[in-house]
Amino acid sequence: MSTDDNQQAREQLIDLAAQFYDQFELGEIPHMSVPTRTKNNIEYDEEMSVWVYGDRESTRSANSVRGARKLLKAIYTIEFLSEQLEEDRSSTLRELYYLSESWDNDEAQFTSQDESNGMIEDLEIVSGVTREDFHMRPEESGAKVMGPLHIREQTNRGDRDIHCQLDVGQGGYQVPNNPDTIEFLDHDADFVLCVETGGMRDRLVENGFDEEYNAIVVHLGGQPARATRRLTKRFHDELGLPVVVFTDGDPWSYRIYGSVAYGSIKSAHLSEYLATPEADFIGIQPSDIVEYELPTDPLSDSDINALESELEDPRFKTDYWTEQIELQLDIGKKSEQQSLASHGLDFVTDTYLPERLGDMGVL
Amino acid sequence: MSTDDNQQAREQLIDLAAQFYDQFELGEIPHMSVPTRTKNNIEYDEEMSVWVYGDRESTRSANSVRGARKLLKAIYTIEFLSEQLEEDRSSTLRELYYLSESWDNDEAQFTSQDESNGMIEDLEIVSGVTREDFHMRPEESGAKVMGPLHIREQTNRGDRDIHCQLDVGQGGYQVPNNPDTIEFLDHDADFVLCVETGGMRDRLVENGFDEEYNAIVVHLGGQPARATRRLTKRFHDELGLPVVVFTDGDPWSYRIYGSVAYGSIKSAHLSEYLATPEADFIGIQPSDIVEYELPTDPLSDSDINALESELEDPRFKTDYWTEQIELQLDIGKKSEQQSLASHGLDFVTDTYLPERLGDMGVL
Repeated sequence: MSTDDNQQAREQLIDLAAQFYDQFELGEIPHMSVPTRTKNNIEYDEEMSVWVYGDRESTRSANSVRGARKLLKAIYTIEFLSEQLEEDRSSTLRELYYLSESWDNDEAQFTSQDESNGMIEDLEIVSGVTREDFHMRPEESGAKVMGPLHIREQTNRGDRDIHCQLDVGQGGYQVPNNPDTIEFLDHDADFVLCVETGGMRDRLVENGFDEEYNAIVVHLGGQPARATRRLTKRFHDELGLPVVVFTDGDPWSYRIYGSVAYGSIKSAHLSEYLATPEADFIGIQPSDIVEYELPTDPLSDSDINALESELEDPRFKTDYWTEQIELQLDIGKKSEQQSLASHGLDFVTDTYLPERLGDMGVL
Repeated sequence: MSTDDNQQAREQLIDLAAQFYDQFELGEIPHMSVPTRTKNNIEYDEEMSVWVYGDRESTRSANSVRGARKLLKAIYTIEFLSEQLEEDRSSTLRELYYLSESWDNDEAQFTSQDESNGMIEDLEIVSGVTREDFHMRPEESGAKVMGPLHIREQTNRGDRDIHCQLDVGQGGYQVPNNPDTIEFLDHDADFVLCVETGGMRDRLVENGFDEEYNAIVVHLGGQPARATRRLTKRFHDELGLPVVVFTDGDPWSYRIYGSVAYGSIKSAHLSEYLATPEADFIGIQPSDIVEYELPTDPLSDSDINALESELEDPRFKTDYWTEQIELQLDIGKKSEQQSLASHGLDFVTDTYLPERLGDMGVL
C-alpha cells in the first residue's frame, strides 16, 4: 500500500469518529447506522449481477448501555486502525480480538472474536474502506498463480519483481494476503483459468498448459480466499482477460464458481470489489459427465437438496444452469475434475479443456 | 528428480514384479508379504525416537481369487509407475484411481480410492521407495518458507534459483510437492522455526523476525503435509540447523509437534524419511499461559481426553511433557499463539520468542 492510500483510509476512519463528535456538539445522542446484514436484507442487483445489501438499517445508538458500549468499542478500534495505518503495519482479525485486552478501558474490550469481526465489518461498510485497506490481514492464504505474467509486489522489505513462470518453482507464485500490493508489469496471457483442486492445478502445470495456451492458472483451493477472488477480478478488469472456473461437477463446486462470479452473502458489501460476474463456468458440467462418460459417484441426499436449492437461487436462474442442474438431478450422478484421468493423464489438457474453451469462445 | 533416481526407483519396482516371476518359475504360488499396518503393529523405536512397524506381516497370496486379484492390481500399478518414471512424469493418488478405469483388464481396476491408496502404501513399504520417488504427488500442498536461504529447484521446465527472502513476495517460497527436487545452495540461517498458523507466520514475516534472527520460518498450516515434514528434516540433517516448533497451546497442537518430531502411525514406514526427532517444542507451553498471563479458553471435554491420552503416549512420556500436560489439566485452560498479541503486536518477536529461544539454548 502506498502512503497515500494509507492516508486516505485513515481519513475515512477519522471522519467516522468525527461524526460522533459532531453529534455530541449538536446535542444528539451519538449513533451509527449500518445495513442489516441478514439473509432477508440481501438483494440481487440484476444490473451488476452481484448481491448487495437492501435498504434495511440497524442503528447503534448510545441511548442504551449496550449501544454506548458498542460505540466505545468502535472508537477504540478506529484509534487502533488509524495508528496501524500511520505506522504502515498490519494485523489479523484474531490479533485485534486479543489486542483489545491491552486497551485501558475494560468496557472497550471485545468479549468474543465474533464481536470484533462484526465490528470490522461494520466499519468496512460504514466507511466504504475494505478490510485490506485497514491492513487487517485474513488468516487464510491466497492462491498460487502460474502463468505468463510479470508482476511487481510491494512488500514491507521493498519491491519484488516476479515472473509467474520463470521466477517461481513448480508450486508457483504465492499471492499475498492483500493482492492490491501487486502491480501488473507485463503479460502474454489470453485468459485466466481458476482451478478448484490442488491435484488438477498440479496436472495443468506439469502438462505445461499455462505455457501452451497462455493461461494464468489460479489455484482456488476449495472455497476461494478473499485475496484470490480479488486478484481474479483484477485480472479481468485491469488486464481485460476472460475468466473461466474449473471445478468438480457437484453442487458444492457450483457454489465455488458462484463465489468467484457473484460474491457471497457474508461479503455482499464487497461484491463490487471481489466478484467477477463475467466469469464463466467451464466444468465439470453434468452434460460432460454424460458426453465424456466420466466415472461417477451417486448424488447423496444433501447433494440433491443443494441442487434443488440452487434451482431456486437467483444466481443460478439462467437457462444454462437450470438445464444443467435438472440434467444432474435426472442422472443422479456427480464427477470430480480428476475423473478425467480415466481417459489418460493428458486428456484434460489435450482434449477436454481445448474443446470446452472452443465451445465457450475463449479459444 | 534426476534420471538416475528415476532409474533406481524403476528398478526396485521391476524387481518386485520379477519376484512374482521367480515364484512362478519355482512352482510357488506368487505372494507378497507386507508389515501389518494396524495400531497393534506399531512400535516405538527408542533409539531412533520414531514409530516403526513391528514384526507382524500380512501376506497377499494368489491362493485365493481375492489374493490373486490383489497381485494383478499390483502388477498393473507397477507397470503404470514404471512407465511414469520412464517418461519423467507424475500423478496424484486420485488420478491413479481413476486411471485404472482405462486399464484393459477389468479385474485390475480399483474399486475405491482406499484400495489404490493402500496399494501405493504396500508398494512403498515392500520396495523401500517412497511415494514421492514413484512420482505420486499428494493432493495437499507443502509449506511456505521465508528465510535466509538460497535454493535451486529442479522443475519440469528447468532449474530455478530462488532466494527465500529476496526473490519472493510477502507470501514466501511455495514448497513443491516433492521437496527432494530442492538443492540447498547457500544459507545464513541459525535455526528453523516451524509455525502452526498463517496469522502467526504473517506476523513473524511482517516483523522481520526471519531477518533479525536468521531464522527459516516454515508455515505448517495445521497438520503438516509430507512435503513440509520432509523439508524440515532436510534442513536439520543436511544444514545442521536446530528445529523448533511453535504452535497453539492445546493438545491438538502438541500432536502437530509430534508429527514433525516423531512421525505418525499412518506413515510409520517413512519415519526415517519424514520425522525430525531432534525438533524441540517452543510453545505455547502451559507454563507460558501462567507466566505470560495469556488470554485463555477453558479446556473442553475432548481437550481433556486428548491430554490424558497424550500422558499415556510413549512419544510424550518425558519429564518435560508430563509436567506441562499435568499443569494444563490442573489450570484447565488453553491459549492460542495469537493470544500473545494481548501484550501488543511486537511482543511475540521482541520478548516471547527471544526469551524462549534463549531458555532452549538456540539463541
